[in-house]
Amino acid sequence: MKRKSVKLIEAFCKRIYQQLKEGVPPTVVMPSRSTDNILYDRKLKQYVLGSRVVKRSITNIRNLRPFTQLVWVAKFSHELLLNKRTSTLRDVFYSAQAYNIQFKNQEESNNIIVDLETVLGIPREEFNIFPEERSAIFGDLTIEYTVPGYRGKRLNLSAHPDGILIGPSLLTAKIRKTSADKIIVIEKGGLFTRFIEERVHKRFNAILIQTGGQAPRTTRAFIRRLNEELKLPVYILVDGDPWGMHIAMVIISGSANAAHLRGLTTPDAEWIGITGTDILTYKLPSDPLTPTDIKRLKELQRDPRYSGKRWQKEIKAFLKHKRKSELEAFCKYGLTYIVDKYLPEKLK
Amino acid sequence: MKRKSVKLIEAFCKRIYQQLKEGVPPTVVMPSRSTDNILYDRKLKQYVLGSRVVKRSITNIRNLRPFTQLVWVAKFSHELLLNKRTSTLRDVFYSAQAYNIQFKNQEESNNIIVDLETVLGIPREEFNIFPEERSAIFGDLTIEYTVPGYRGKRLNLSAHPDGILIGPSLLTAKIRKTSADKIIVIEKGGLFTRFIEERVHKRFNAILIQTGGQAPRTTRAFIRRLNEELKLPVYILVDGDPWGMHIAMVIISGSANAAHLRGLTTPDAEWIGITGTDILTYKLPSDPLTPTDIKRLKELQRDPRYSGKRWQKEIKAFLKHKRKSELEAFCKYGLTYIVDKYLPEKLK
Repeated sequence: MKRKSVKLIEAFCKRIYQQLKEGVPPTVVMPSRSTDNILYDRKLKQYVLGSRVVKRSITNIRNLRPFTQLVWVAKFSHELLLNKRTSTLRDVFYSAQAYNIQFKNQEESNNIIVDLETVLGIPREEFNIFPEERSAIFGDLTIEYTVPGYRGKRLNLSAHPDGILIGPSLLTAKIRKTSADKIIVIEKGGLFTRFIEERVHKRFNAILIQTGGQAPRTTRAFIRRLNEELKLPVYILVDGDPWGMHIAMVIISGSANAAHLRGLTTPDAEWIGITGTDILTYKLPSDPLTPTDIKRLKELQRDPRYSGKRWQKEIKAFLKHKRKSELEAFCKYGLTYIVDKYLPEKLK
Repeated sequence: MKRKSVKLIEAFCKRIYQQLKEGVPPTVVMPSRSTDNILYDRKLKQYVLGSRVVKRSITNIRNLRPFTQLVWVAKFSHELLLNKRTSTLRDVFYSAQAYNIQFKNQEESNNIIVDLETVLGIPREEFNIFPEERSAIFGDLTIEYTVPGYRGKRLNLSAHPDGILIGPSLLTAKIRKTSADKIIVIEKGGLFTRFIEERVHKRFNAILIQTGGQAPRTTRAFIRRLNEELKLPVYILVDGDPWGMHIAMVIISGSANAAHLRGLTTPDAEWIGITGTDILTYKLPSDPLTPTDIKRLKELQRDPRYSGKRWQKEIKAFLKHKRKSELEAFCKYGLTYIVDKYLPEKLK
């Protein structure tokens, strides 16, 4: 069980209970998540919430509904944690009906779940509300489960050569041991499979992670954990376009949407490519940037997360040659080129 | 290695070689895949190709390009199989450049890959071209790998409680033993995880499979294999709307797109719900059908795969009450209702 989460929820509820006991109208205070209160913290290298707060007192009739919903989500999550059960955003929306709690639509319930994240300061996965998407991991890493029925059992993450799903059981497991000295994150499932076939994990002594496009928060949290607990450097391999670049950036510095959370970023992770320069250096097959691609690059140019010299240089390279390349483009030189040539050169 | 696939490709190439030796212009003959040659076979319960054929002789200059491309894809797949390597549709498109074979775009190369499927009569996964999507499986089923580095190793598919990815290694594994007496296929990852937590695999003695929406062909082929090799009945659980229904139908009877293939359908698999009737019986939270939903239902009504009594009755039920419900809607009665009540009632 996630003791820390249980304690945080109980502390939150006790505060309300205390207020009731003292005859004070129950009030919740939390940082505001409105855009003008989202700031970039250069030291943390991630977005954080500023000092403005939202005060939700039940003396204001407008607050009664979200206040009740928030307390219910806290209660529901508390039950999930005690019963060692997980659920999804969609489950929560429908479960409310079992308790006669009303949500107009899922947007409303999702929003209250983010409120609870903000109040508690932990992502919803920590109170057992998980996303549908799953990514995967592979390599010599032994974990020890803590979920019911598996407690104490160990699994080496090279047990299944199609990769091991990153789900609730893996995320709550203890990290026991590894012989790897780095982590390679790949955006695509097909390439992940080829990397396993080419024994990249052995040849480069690496743990491989595939994100399936934009990495789910759980996967980002897990990458951070591996980076911290095992002190392993993280390298990220994505398509050579603004969208691939941003998949890498969200792993490194997080998203504005998660400004109320910590522990999802890996500031010292490294984007190895495909960079704008790589497209020329490796004479990769490429497509012209679309107007949307160019617009996105210009947004990134102004984004504080991209203020570093290397990022700015690479954005300029893209904007200059106006081309983009996918990871599969290396196949032009044969299926194994990316592993035999590109990867060793970039990891140096 | 997939000996059967290697032999089929070699036989195909020998035919061409033989023609060249005899001084006959090389010609490929294959069933036409145009819509008017796609017929529904009531006995096979799937779409098949009719008797019309396409003849591609190199004496016609228009045929030179697709003929050469087809022979190259055969050669490339042959190499993949001999080297025990897999790739994706995208990989093939880019790999062509390494051989100076031209494809205008990926659509053209995808199409030639389907040509090769048609000529050989096997799905592309059999010649190691895999999709990006992955689904997952969980339960007491022991498999034995045949891929390099893992040959002879066994894995019980309950080893990882987040589920085991269905990828190239699992698909080529030998099925060794199971204590399960049924297979339950679920459309959604979140529910799959909850089923594992609720120990559905033990309580219902089942192997669980999640498809992540429309099941990839590899997963459909694997369901068929489990059904045939282990003689296990298959039950399919999907959202209560035309799209969910069709996810079940494609597992049962396949798609028109795959009319040139066999071995992807499980004709005796059973759609257990959510049916149109269930929505009323279980008083599920529901949303109104959209005009698109209704249009789709009317298409299904005329679709030969849906000609059975039960299907027609359920389509009518949807069209009458004009509501749809997702699997998560059962949460209205608590998270475990679907497992404690609905599933036992429907499996009876």
